[in-house]
Amino acid sequence: MTARLRQEVLATEGGARRTRVHTPRGSFETPLFMPVGTRGAVVHLDAGDYEALGAEVVLANTYHLMMRPGVEVVAALGGLGGFTSWDGHFLSDSGGYQVMSLDDRVTVDDAGVTFRSTYDGELVRLTPEGAVAAQEALGADIQMALDVCPALPAPADVVRLAMERTHAWVCRAAAAHQRPDQALFGIVQGGVDPDLRRHSGRFLASLDLAGYGIGGLSVGEHPSQRLAALDSVVAELPDDRPRYLMGVGDPVNVTEAVARGVDMFDCVLPTRLARHGTVLTSQGRINLRNARHTADPRPLDPAVQVSSRFSRGYLRHLLKVGEPTAGRILTLHNLSFLMGLIDQTREAITSGSFDDFKAEVAARWA
Amino acid sequence: MTARLRQEVLATEGGARRTRVHTPRGSFETPLFMPVGTRGAVVHLDAGDYEALGAEVVLANTYHLMMRPGVEVVAALGGLGGFTSWDGHFLSDSGGYQVMSLDDRVTVDDAGVTFRSTYDGELVRLTPEGAVAAQEALGADIQMALDVCPALPAPADVVRLAMERTHAWVCRAAAAHQRPDQALFGIVQGGVDPDLRRHSGRFLASLDLAGYGIGGLSVGEHPSQRLAALDSVVAELPDDRPRYLMGVGDPVNVTEAVARGVDMFDCVLPTRLARHGTVLTSQGRINLRNARHTADPRPLDPAVQVSSRFSRGYLRHLLKVGEPTAGRILTLHNLSFLMGLIDQTREAITSGSFDDFKAEVAARWA
Repeated sequence: MTARLRQEVLATEGGARRTRVHTPRGSFETPLFMPVGTRGAVVHLDAGDYEALGAEVVLANTYHLMMRPGVEVVAALGGLGGFTSWDGHFLSDSGGYQVMSLDDRVTVDDAGVTFRSTYDGELVRLTPEGAVAAQEALGADIQMALDVCPALPAPADVVRLAMERTHAWVCRAAAAHQRPDQALFGIVQGGVDPDLRRHSGRFLASLDLAGYGIGGLSVGEHPSQRLAALDSVVAELPDDRPRYLMGVGDPVNVTEAVARGVDMFDCVLPTRLARHGTVLTSQGRINLRNARHTADPRPLDPAVQVSSRFSRGYLRHLLKVGEPTAGRILTLHNLSFLMGLIDQTREAITSGSFDDFKAEVAARWA
Repeated sequence: MTARLRQEVLATEGGARRTRVHTPRGSFETPLFMPVGTRGAVVHLDAGDYEALGAEVVLANTYHLMMRPGVEVVAALGGLGGFTSWDGHFLSDSGGYQVMSLDDRVTVDDAGVTFRSTYDGELVRLTPEGAVAAQEALGADIQMALDVCPALPAPADVVRLAMERTHAWVCRAAAAHQRPDQALFGIVQGGVDPDLRRHSGRFLASLDLAGYGIGGLSVGEHPSQRLAALDSVVAELPDDRPRYLMGVGDPVNVTEAVARGVDMFDCVLPTRLARHGTVLTSQGRINLRNARHTADPRPLDPAVQVSSRFSRGYLRHLLKVGEPTAGRILTLHNLSFLMGLIDQTREAITSGSFDDFKAEVAARWA
């Protein structure tokens, strides 16, 4: 059982589309960027900040919340919404990506994965059914079926086996899923092989899920391979269901994917870059650690209100001496900048200027 | 030269007083708690947060800003106000306390102190005139003359020599000080010897400074010794100048000092405790790391608005996994709680119920 999401198309330009996705308790617009709240919070931020940023959906990492504080604690405190005191929408990932990327001794078999917790080294078993149950306890509006996500490049048989297991597991997830207020998305795999991707997209489309994640990209492949894989997948997916490209959040790749009909994105990059002093601006990236910013009185980007009262010199100082205030302001800045870019993307689709906008983004962020 | 601060008495009860201190560019009320912005920011916070908390004066650490980014950078970015983008008042300490507490090989002679930077081990010389110049560059509304602050207990001759040097240095600071828009405070020393404290208070009072810091307390002495020293000092200080007890900020000691006529306080404790998970509430201290808070849905203190939307269980989780969001919310909470207590102190003096209020605080925080 899965909640149905009605996807209302507001505007299209070529393959790009602007939509409103209606959930059992509200709606959100696409194209959409979802900030990542890894361990119950976007690093440095809280629910008041999500509201101020205009975030619509926040991603929660099932893996981290399973390990700490445990899904039963989150459930006891009212699920993700009650736990974090945020009324907006949540999407929970399945935990599979973290399991496979955080433990290099992870073992995958037909029934599930066995891994060691990064918190205490304890051996943990995760199955498709277990991931569904954990995510039902977390209570996000959207949950993702457990998938197998190999790092690329990988041998063809590894990629094929990962895809086949992913297909078997999404069927088991759909059979296990019970919460009628929660949508279940499956995840397309298949590496960078257009045939496998086409096959995987077609298989998942046949399952009549609420929406579709496109996984296993942005894991080491060449951008041109990624776009070819994306083209193969999107052609197979139904037009009336959200498409979510997992782990992608940089301006160029987002606009390229939007042009191909992708609706939803998440990425830790804007927040991780922020903590290391790399700032997104309308003039491109700035490395704030650079000495030339020492006494610079200008804001990072005058158009980004959340940081515009602070000088580059002040923020550089806070960053250099390790004050957490820097991480916070730069995180707010990068998210605000990226979500502003998404707003512009939506408006460009509505006004029929998306193609020009995409070219501009490509030129500025090349 | 020092700017004059007019201290308007709004209400008194016994020795306690509620006043408004008028500066060249505004005013602030006392009793006053000043959050400590060690390296250009209160840890986790920014100017917008100071405004939301209703902070009136923020303390800046001259030592840290001299080392990083250097006072000339702060001056180039508009002084402390421009640097931090905060319009409220600033008080800068002289750097003496940090010099003497952060380097155990510091040497003091009649002319100044020589110490090694905690940032890069570089040898640095600080004189009374140098501290004045550094603080004029920082441009706080109030600067403190360089003092010698021994850790207690200390031999009588060490305490006496520290006091005598402090007296000589405040005269040199007053002679060197030039900014007419900046008030210069001297610092009373004398350890816990009531005679020395009386002598030091009388000497500083004779200098006709804009206000008086009471230093060298809360550095290891017994609370009863502290209060006796305080009684000796305050009796010597002029009634029409602010009195600032340095480094004290816990509820019991603040109200005891207010009862003795002290106006201003600063302390890193509420913010440092916050980062370690110790929370101030109307029911006393809470150690949020305690397992009993794991699934507690209650807020830390329903009367503290800045944190009341979050459950103890959520904040404990964020704290335990090291999310900076926890440090931020708990810092805002503790400052908000303490500044609320200061507001209650002011109101109690106005309504003539300060004595009862002080007894209540002592009972609750014993």
